[in-house]
Amino acid sequence: MKARVYVSIKPSVLDPQGQTICSALNGLGHREIAAVRQGKYFEIAVADQTPQDRAAAVLDEIARDVLSNPVIEDYRVEILD
Amino acid sequence: MKARVYVSIKPSVLDPQGQTICSALNGLGHREIAAVRQGKYFEIAVADQTPQDRAAAVLDEIARDVLSNPVIEDYRVEILD
Repeated sequence: MKARVYVSIKPSVLDPQGQTICSALNGLGHREIAAVRQGKYFEIAVADQTPQDRAAAVLDEIARDVLSNPVIEDYRVEILD
Repeated sequence: MKARVYVSIKPSVLDPQGQTICSALNGLGHREIAAVRQGKYFEIAVADQTPQDRAAAVLDEIARDVLSNPVIEDYRVEILD
């Protein structure tokens, strides 16, 4: 089973890395770009014999406790098959 | 208009960061996790007056030339609205 976890900085938290990318893109002539925010993305393979509901629970726990910092980040889990 | 760009390491390229996360998760007791690969994720806001086809072309160019390294990385552009 494959899953994807997306971790992004909360909208209320400043993202200087994203702002720098946005300035760089504007400087390169891409004036259409209004804002950029950078996040992380994980492709996770779960052992095939794991039941779907158990996998969903484990992935949610991992995303919350290990892959993201819940104080400043949001996460989203997407189970593919 | 909002878009998301996902940048992931090509399957043929080693991802030591992902392997380290996978080992750490196994060490924490999450034995169901078979593999992890880490990528980057960008949320991009494009100025509203930009035509859709122009935005798609600009985003593809930015993803290819600025946000990813086409030698070792793949990218995927998703336009939201």
